[in-house]
Amino acid sequence: MSSIPFDDLLQARQRIAGLVRQTPLEHSPSLSRLAGVPVWLKLESQQATGSFKLRGASNAVAQLDAEQKGLGVVTASTGNHGRALAFAASQQGVKAIVCLSELVPQNKVRAIRELGAEVVISGRSQDDAQREALRIAREQGAAFIPPFDHPHVIAGQGSLGLEILEQCPDVCEVLVPLSGGGLFAGVALAIKAASPAIRTHGISMQLGAAMHASLEAGEPVEVEELPTLADSLGGGIGLDNRFTYSITRELCDQVHLLDEAAIARGIRHAYREERLVVEGAAAVGIAALLDGLVEPRGPVVVVISGRNIDIDQHLRVLNGADA
Amino acid sequence: MSSIPFDDLLQARQRIAGLVRQTPLEHSPSLSRLAGVPVWLKLESQQATGSFKLRGASNAVAQLDAEQKGLGVVTASTGNHGRALAFAASQQGVKAIVCLSELVPQNKVRAIRELGAEVVISGRSQDDAQREALRIAREQGAAFIPPFDHPHVIAGQGSLGLEILEQCPDVCEVLVPLSGGGLFAGVALAIKAASPAIRTHGISMQLGAAMHASLEAGEPVEVEELPTLADSLGGGIGLDNRFTYSITRELCDQVHLLDEAAIARGIRHAYREERLVVEGAAAVGIAALLDGLVEPRGPVVVVISGRNIDIDQHLRVLNGADA
Repeated sequence: MSSIPFDDLLQARQRIAGLVRQTPLEHSPSLSRLAGVPVWLKLESQQATGSFKLRGASNAVAQLDAEQKGLGVVTASTGNHGRALAFAASQQGVKAIVCLSELVPQNKVRAIRELGAEVVISGRSQDDAQREALRIAREQGAAFIPPFDHPHVIAGQGSLGLEILEQCPDVCEVLVPLSGGGLFAGVALAIKAASPAIRTHGISMQLGAAMHASLEAGEPVEVEELPTLADSLGGGIGLDNRFTYSITRELCDQVHLLDEAAIARGIRHAYREERLVVEGAAAVGIAALLDGLVEPRGPVVVVISGRNIDIDQHLRVLNGADA
Repeated sequence: MSSIPFDDLLQARQRIAGLVRQTPLEHSPSLSRLAGVPVWLKLESQQATGSFKLRGASNAVAQLDAEQKGLGVVTASTGNHGRALAFAASQQGVKAIVCLSELVPQNKVRAIRELGAEVVISGRSQDDAQREALRIAREQGAAFIPPFDHPHVIAGQGSLGLEILEQCPDVCEVLVPLSGGGLFAGVALAIKAASPAIRTHGISMQLGAAMHASLEAGEPVEVEELPTLADSLGGGIGLDNRFTYSITRELCDQVHLLDEAAIARGIRHAYREERLVVEGAAAVGIAALLDGLVEPRGPVVVVISGRNIDIDQHLRVLNGADA
């Protein structure tokens, strides 16, 4: 597979140490009772910008040379990566342009603008937005920083896996939201380097799970992008995927798919039992435990990936809706 | 005044460094727009056990000698201090008994039991519960750790003030929930040692604000304990108050009192704009800014003290209720 050296993860962690937060690992009494083993939540929802994406974006910007930094950065994003790149670029004195599809919730668009980035809206899919970003990169010379399929981004997300190993040395099962695979690949590279016996679970929604469809097909395939509570998990993995597809195929022990009602239960559980506001994509690990999809052999770490949900939608879910 | 040396705060911070979290200071775009100056939230709602109280409890337990640790600790608490002491004692291998009044919400009682402490319910006020705790201390020899009026507890809370100074060196206004005064005294001792020009604001609810009534009376007085959204701010300061009354009188530049509707607005704002679940007591700083009670001259730090609200009550508030 097109892998990434473990040493790159260690270097990324050093490089971004002053730019991102080491997030807490919080014990969940309610999920531990349910699962019969200790369950810990890795709270990337408390990362600056509200999601894990800051890790990869910060590492990618930090690895640019001075000339590239002068020309700025550009990306396409379902929201969290754009927000993270805007913040990371601003922190490091670099101009950022973020291309978004029309499906991205309005609160995420506003947040990216407030972080100082220029926003370009284009098309109705992640792929459309990505084409626009690549065009801008060609025309203006800005460095294209993709949301997931880039070794510097993956190595940055890997810092999260390294923290999990330190904070929970006896972890047996790691539950990771699975979308384009940048988070999954980074975390799995760290976890499997420590011990191949630690089981990795990639968790997606049933509606438009591109990585799952690609793993089933044996190669990257396109899927229709559909509205889902886990909108951050939407979008394709790219037919020319170079890293995340092969790493995920190699290192993912199990994939679990969730319907919308299960994701809604995960959001409500995070709120009621953990006092956490989390987006749908971040609730899938909790939802998988609630639905009994994982049979844990020992301590479980659930990656809670972000909190950037449209708040009116969140309140509807708290009040019982599934969408 | 019966003060506490600044050096005690520095030592407390060292002593508890491995026992508590350094919590993030998060920029609030919405409150900054409103106030016209940068507004930062000090997120003690993300402290382990869900409130700042862990700082003081951890420091108090750590300062016991070996014999005292063997006899255990006991306290009275509206919930967060009891929860913190249960956790701190457990972390340090010490037995804890927590006395609560009947007014303490059920979710807080359950949480304390889950942390391994024995719970004793006694009376309808903080003062009743405190009398019971003192009786147990006399009979069993356990060390009584009061919720606020103790130099080790205050020095522990002071570590929060030290973090604020490091995380926001140009802070001009510090907004602190004001109840028994342990949090306020600790933070104010740190802040005023750095610069007497930094303005300290103590914020309470209108219903049963014992410290405010005492400051008005010129001596500690009793007030009737009333149900309020900011239930963690309820309870007396003790007629025999030794530390927090005099420190607060000396170091508090302004006191602000809020009605229940304002506290509810603060809770809703924290949820909608910051994606935070906070208890009523923790929302008073945000509420004071929303109501224009503070006229900031420069950067503001708002202490968000905890998240341990009854979740059904929280959801009612999100849906528009004021109680």
